[in-house]
Order: sequence, then structure tokens, then C-alpha cells
Amino acid sequence: MRALWLEGDLSLRSDLPRPVAGPGEALVRVRLAGICGTDLAVTRGYVPFNGVLGHEFVGEIVAAADAPERVGERVVGEINVTCGACPACAAGRGTHCSNRRVLGIRGLDGAFAEYLRLPLSNLHPVPAQVPDEAAVLTEPLAAALRIRAQIDVDASQRVLVIGAGRLGQLAARVLALGGCELLVVARHERQRRALEAAGLRWIDEAAVAAARADMVVEATGAPGGFALARRAVRPGGVICLKSTYRGGPEVDLSSLVVDEVTLLGSRCGPFPPALRLLAQGLIDPSPLIDARYPLGRATEAMAHAARPGAIKVLLTCADAR
Amino acid sequence: MRALWLEGDLSLRSDLPRPVAGPGEALVRVRLAGICGTDLAVTRGYVPFNGVLGHEFVGEIVAAADAPERVGERVVGEINVTCGACPACAAGRGTHCSNRRVLGIRGLDGAFAEYLRLPLSNLHPVPAQVPDEAAVLTEPLAAALRIRAQIDVDASQRVLVIGAGRLGQLAARVLALGGCELLVVARHERQRRALEAAGLRWIDEAAVAAARADMVVEATGAPGGFALARRAVRPGGVICLKSTYRGGPEVDLSSLVVDEVTLLGSRCGPFPPALRLLAQGLIDPSPLIDARYPLGRATEAMAHAARPGAIKVLLTCADAR
Repeated sequence: MRALWLEGDLSLRSDLPRPVAGPGEALVRVRLAGICGTDLAVTRGYVPFNGVLGHEFVGEIVAAADAPERVGERVVGEINVTCGACPACAAGRGTHCSNRRVLGIRGLDGAFAEYLRLPLSNLHPVPAQVPDEAAVLTEPLAAALRIRAQIDVDASQRVLVIGAGRLGQLAARVLALGGCELLVVARHERQRRALEAAGLRWIDEAAVAAARADMVVEATGAPGGFALARRAVRPGGVICLKSTYRGGPEVDLSSLVVDEVTLLGSRCGPFPPALRLLAQGLIDPSPLIDARYPLGRATEAMAHAARPGAIKVLLTCADAR
Repeated sequence: MRALWLEGDLSLRSDLPRPVAGPGEALVRVRLAGICGTDLAVTRGYVPFNGVLGHEFVGEIVAAADAPERVGERVVGEINVTCGACPACAAGRGTHCSNRRVLGIRGLDGAFAEYLRLPLSNLHPVPAQVPDEAAVLTEPLAAALRIRAQIDVDASQRVLVIGAGRLGQLAARVLALGGCELLVVARHERQRRALEAAGLRWIDEAAVAAARADMVVEATGAPGGFALARRAVRPGGVICLKSTYRGGPEVDLSSLVVDEVTLLGSRCGPFPPALRLLAQGLIDPSPLIDARYPLGRATEAMAHAARPGAIKVLLTCADAR
């Protein structure tokens, strides 16, 4: 099969064997995949990964020996494959399984391919009214929802989202559903138009008030984004960290103590509520899509996704039905 | 009057005028004061402060034009003097008043003196059954209680307190009241004996298990303490930062995101519950007291408080009744 392969460099290969689903697993034909900032970071060596890149996808089950009734189901998939036996798994915190493999990131070939395999328990059926172009964003939408699972955001609070890429856009949409007073720091025209399309307010970073926000979501992954978040949060407030960082931002722990600021690391989230929000039309991710490339032009698509201001670039992996 | 004066160096002075209580304030005769790690840090230049040092005290009101009925009352005092008008004050978060003065730390002469002045609203009466030697620890006990105001600590959780100085000792005692599984990292024999006296379990830092604690309270203020906390907390867990730091510990923000760890800055806490715990005998701070010096030997007392393993050194400021 064809796939985008990372081994130091990226290459499009067509000589890879189709994966074989083991016990409890399904073989999934990938219809559409999304390129994420993490994919770009993995390509730059953020984690030591060799294999097929990609973790955002929508596809259909084409084989599942243990659940033949699910063949033909249109699905999205949770990306952490857990051991079920370690203390984190036993405590119901599977996303922190110490032996986890992660689709396209750690020990498991990913979604920029014609086919992938995942445990059946990772695969969630997509409601019929959710088109592929929305379903492919279930994973980052779930990551945005994780914020609200970790912290109560009161409707009267002032929330600032820093960064208007794919995750900042989705975090803003999810937080806006709670009725809070929301501003999004957006640098690029493309990002600002996408926010306006959702009725959201953007500001320039130079206009951010100091020590005013009850909560700040830092979604840039840049040290400057963290510095802005630290400046913007009020004493007693929360900075939710949604992105990993290139380079280490300086953190003044003493000032966190004096100002009683909370730093909250936040990663993967729950798929079922993300699918419900998409099915109910409460989140419309379609204005976030920049472009769609066939898998054969995946390296070109990766370059597009890395452009400043790009939000979401998709790959058509197997031929659409 | 006599007082311990900081102006670059420490000096015992006897030429200072007795403070004059303004409208809404009381003049307090200081019976007993406690030396805190923050006092040592202020002496080393942690904040730019010139004046009378000290913020932990018990005393008695000797003058209060606006509340003559309170003269003679034995009191402890909250250390933040707030403006009542800034956004933080308006929101009920007076400890974060942006114009605050802080007793013996910022803009307000402190407690290592025969007399001090504070607003009447800062002064809480001490129940008769609480001796001066316990009441003088109300402020750090309130700071320890702040942890439980900020975060629910479930009785089935594993909690690690790092550092067994005065704040670590009090934090451990307060957390133990919740029934959690508690361990305290203690370096010094003196600290270990004080923990044992309260029925608490201590361990050596070399024995701390990695990624096991649901919550870690970091009470050393040393970069090594933070590194140990980061190693000890489980994914999804909380590190409560109770001390300001000399030197900047390295913080890997990306790993906070991946492991969804929370850093929680924590500072001053509520006096009334601290006084209730002391009055009910649920916290007995008397095993924490190393020594008691008269104010005239305050510099010697400061040196004692700086010794490794010291927990709490007291100063008798005015003559006891």
C-alpha cells in the first residue's frame, strides 16, 4: 500500500505491506486524514519515531475478525493504544498508560496511509449526519474538550486563547459554548477570518491586557506564547497548556507561587462528546480547512500545513466511496 | 522602641518610634513572633524591603481609636493590607490586591518589634485555650490550609510532601487530617522526630518512588525539591508549589503537557480555620519549636533559624504579661 513514511526524512512509499489486524483489532481503510502540528514536530524529531506518520483520520472498517458486524462502519479512532495492565490503566487513566503506543507518534504506524489497524475499542462510529471533512477533526476537537473536563470554566469568566491554529480555533469554539467572555489572539488574516466566521472575537497580541484573564489557553507551542499567557493571566488564574514546546520557555516558579497561578497540562480528550457536538452542528469545523491533497502529494501537503497561518490541510488517503 | 531592622544588613535598633495606629487600625504589642524562611529570603534580598522584618506574631491590642472595646484582645494578624478598590479586591481576592502592603515584606514594618500596627479587620482574636506558642504559628498554618482550599485531596490519594521545615510540617499535619496516604521527605533528624511525634511517616529522598504520587507538595524552595516533585508525581497529578525559589528550577513545559501535570502556586490562607484547628487541638505545633530568644538577641535567633534542620525559632518581643 501507499503511505507517507518517516525515517529521518519523509518519503512517499508504495511498497509497504497492508497492515494485518490482530485479535481484537480492526483493519481500517483511511478515507481522509488531517495534518496536525504534532506531525510537523515529529518530522522535526520531537519524538524518536520511524514509521507511517499521522493520527487524525476518518475511515471505514474493512476487516475485524472479532466483530464482523462492524465491517463497513465509518469510524474515527482514539490514538492511544493501551496495555490495560499498568497502574494508570488500572486507575482508568488509559491515556497515561506507561506502555502506550500512539498512532503515528509512538510505536504504531499512523493514518497517512491507505490502511491502518487499531483495536476495535479505539474506534467510534461516526453519526451519518457528520461528513468526513468534519469527522476527521474529531481528535483535535476531543483534545479541545479535554480542557473543560479538567477545569470548570464559569460563564462569567474572561478567557483568552493564544494561537488561532487548528487547536486554538477548536478550543475557542468549545469554550464559547460555555458562554464565557472569550478573546482569541490571532496573527494571520486567514485565522482571523475563520474566527469571524464562527462569531468569535480576535485581538492582536499587542492589545492583550495584563493580568486580566481568569483563564488562558496557550495553543501556540512557542515560548513567546507562554510569556504572553503568563502576562495575561490574573493572580489566582489558570494557564492551560495545550501544545508542546520547541525550545524551553523560561518559567518563573516563584512568581507562580506569589500570584497563585496554576499551570495545567492538557492533552488528549474524549471522542464521544466531540462526535455529539459535530452531530448536533454545534461545532462546524469546515471553515478551518485550507486544502485537500491526494496522498500521492503528501509531502506537498505537509509543506502547505507548515505555512504561517495555515489551519488544517487534509489528505485523501484511499479513494472515496 | 526596639526592633530588628533591615536596610541591606540586619541591625537591632532601639531608637525607632512606636508606630501610630491610623483610622481603622490598631496598635499591637507583640508578645511572640516567629522566624520564617521568607524572613531569611528577604534578608538575602529576595524582595527590596527596608524596615522592620517579621510577619508571624501573636500580640495584644493596646490602642484602637475606632474599636476601643477591642483593647486588651489577644490577636493574630493577616499579613496582607489591601486597598479595597482594585479589581482583585473587588472580586474578593484581597491577598492578590495589586496595591497590597505586606507586614514585614512590602511597604509595612513588621513583627520583630515591640509594637506593630495593622488594620483592625486583619486582626483575629485568639481563643483562650490556644497558648501563645501555638497562636504564633497561625499564619503558616493558614498557608498550609490554603492547599485544601485550592484542591480537593481525596482520602484515598497518595500525597507526598517534600521538605520538613515549618511549612512542610504544617502542610503534612493539615493533609493528614483528610485521611490520605501521606509521606514526607525529611532530611534532618530533628525534622524526622517532629514528624514521628505527630504520627506521620517520613522517607529519605532516595526512597521516593517515581510517578506514584497523586499530589506532591513542594515545600523546600530548592530547585532539587522541584525536580524531585516532578519525578514523583504521577501523570495527571498535581504539584502544589508552597515556596518561592532561590535560583530558577528548570521546568520542561512539554512534559507537563504530555503527562497532563498541574503546577499549582499556593500562598497565603485563611486564619479562622487555622485558629479553629488550634483551638480544637487537632494541630499541635509545639513539637516544631526549636528555641525562643528575646528580641535583644534577634540576630542570633536569625542565625539559628538558618541552620539546616531548624523548624521554628521564636522571638519574645515585648515582655510577656
